[in-house]
Amino acid sequence: MNHHDTTAQMIGAHPKKPIFKQDALENLIDTLYECSEACNTCADACLGEKDVNNVVRCIRTCIDCTDICQTTARASSRQTEVDPEILRALVQACRTACESCASECDKHSAHMDHCRICAEVCRRCADTCHSFMI
Amino acid sequence: MNHHDTTAQMIGAHPKKPIFKQDALENLIDTLYECSEACNTCADACLGEKDVNNVVRCIRTCIDCTDICQTTARASSRQTEVDPEILRALVQACRTACESCASECDKHSAHMDHCRICAEVCRRCADTCHSFMI
Amino acid sequence: MNHHDTTAQMIGAHPKKPIFKQDALENLIDTLYECSEACNTCADACLGEKDVNNVVRCIRTCIDCTDICQTTARASSRQTEVDPEILRALVQACRTACESCASECDKHSAHMDHCRICAEVCRRCADTCHSFMI
Amino acid sequence: MNHHDTTAQMIGAHPKKPIFKQDALENLIDTLYECSEACNTCADACLGEKDVNNVVRCIRTCIDCTDICQTTARASSRQTEVDPEILRALVQACRTACESCASECDKHSAHMDHCRICAEVCRRCADTCHSFMI
Repeated sequence: MNHHDTTAQMIGAHPKKPIFKQDALENLIDTLYECSEACNTCADACLGEKDVNNVVRCIRTCIDCTDICQTTARASSRQTEVDPEILRALVQACRTACESCASECDKHSAHMDHCRICAEVCRRCADTCHSFMI
Repeated sequence: MNHHDTTAQMIGAHPKKPIFKQDALENLIDTLYECSEACNTCADACLGEKDVNNVVRCIRTCIDCTDICQTTARASSRQTEVDPEILRALVQACRTACESCASECDKHSAHMDHCRICAEVCRRCADTCHSFMI
Repeated sequence: MNHHDTTAQMIGAHPKKPIFKQDALENLIDTLYECSEACNTCADACLGEKDVNNVVRCIRTCIDCTDICQTTARASSRQTEVDPEILRALVQACRTACESCASECDKHSAHMDHCRICAEVCRRCADTCHSFMI
Repeated sequence: MNHHDTTAQMIGAHPKKPIFKQDALENLIDTLYECSEACNTCADACLGEKDVNNVVRCIRTCIDCTDICQTTARASSRQTEVDPEILRALVQACRTACESCASECDKHSAHMDHCRICAEVCRRCADTCHSFMI
């Protein structure tokens, strides 16, 4: 079993049917965890680079994005007594953070693979958040 | 020394001057941690009540509010390379969560002191978030 | 791309070579996130059951286990200036939490699929933590 | 009202009497939040220094210590169905992290006030964790 299968099984076994489309919800949850992890590792990888002063803004943005993606992943996994207004505001904040982080990581993509991968995941996560809110 | 003094001293010792008014920022940070803790304990206190089925929505909202306040507290404490758009979206999401949690806890305030205290802290935190964004 | 591939790619792109065996480390990180998510959703699924009073201990343990797995996942993903003593103590605490959570969820496995799945993931995560520390 | 008063009131209003001495528990919770915040801000303050390469280990340790203190604060605030083994292992991991972080921040105390303050809070938190476990 892997993370995606576990997410799908857990949502499937939940006594409350999601108020959102189940496929879109599972994709949102998985992408948020993936992005939280990518940003967490990218911040640390930047910190391990030779010239850290060059990637200060990237570290800062990745740290924020990690925390926000994680909180949004946890909240969107909960199906009991959902308050759609809270989730909407949270997913909106998450999209903003992911877009900012993607832009920042993009600047270093040519020289650092961890920034290139992180930018891709952040962009995909921003799009997933956007699609989810429509 | 207490939590508030530590927050103020750490912000004062930071090499970057905050881009927000320092008093308002310190108050925001302290209130967010206080609210995160109040909601965390209120969710657990509700779970320890005799009839848990009665407070399901309160537990759910408190759990979300804990996570969101905490992430917002951490992000607003960071003064290096601040992205005001991320912070604004996050504080907005936090205000939404605090208002929802205050409304929910209010319903149980007459019978449960932890809900009464939590509702007060959540309302104060929602107001602090609102003032901060103006 | 999925979560596991992203973890592997990010660890591979990190400027610091892990001080632990890379396969074991990636497996640890992935399992910790998976377990954090399973516990987070199981706590909420229990909260959505008809008789919540029956699963109070399960909710409490799942909430603790979520937080601990998540913190351990974040810390173990970081390869810059690793302090093996901190990681060892954290992985030990995580193993304790996963074993306790598996035992608790096991009690409800026959009636609730989310508890059955969560118990399996927790047991696997406890074993992964144990193997990693040897 | 401040954070400490709120903690005390919430523990006092909880339907479950703490299985630990209430004064010691409240002190533990408050100190853990204070330390989590000090480390979170110290990591960011280090990141804002002119020569970041000089404080890489400090940033890494502060980030770990933030997460661990926070998770321990949340878990120790919960009085419903406490598993003392989980809490003990967690407080032990937290003590290890705080001691390591205090040692690291001490190295920079002469030049950076945020490291001096953070080292003091970490040392006090390590002692509080130690006293709590006896």
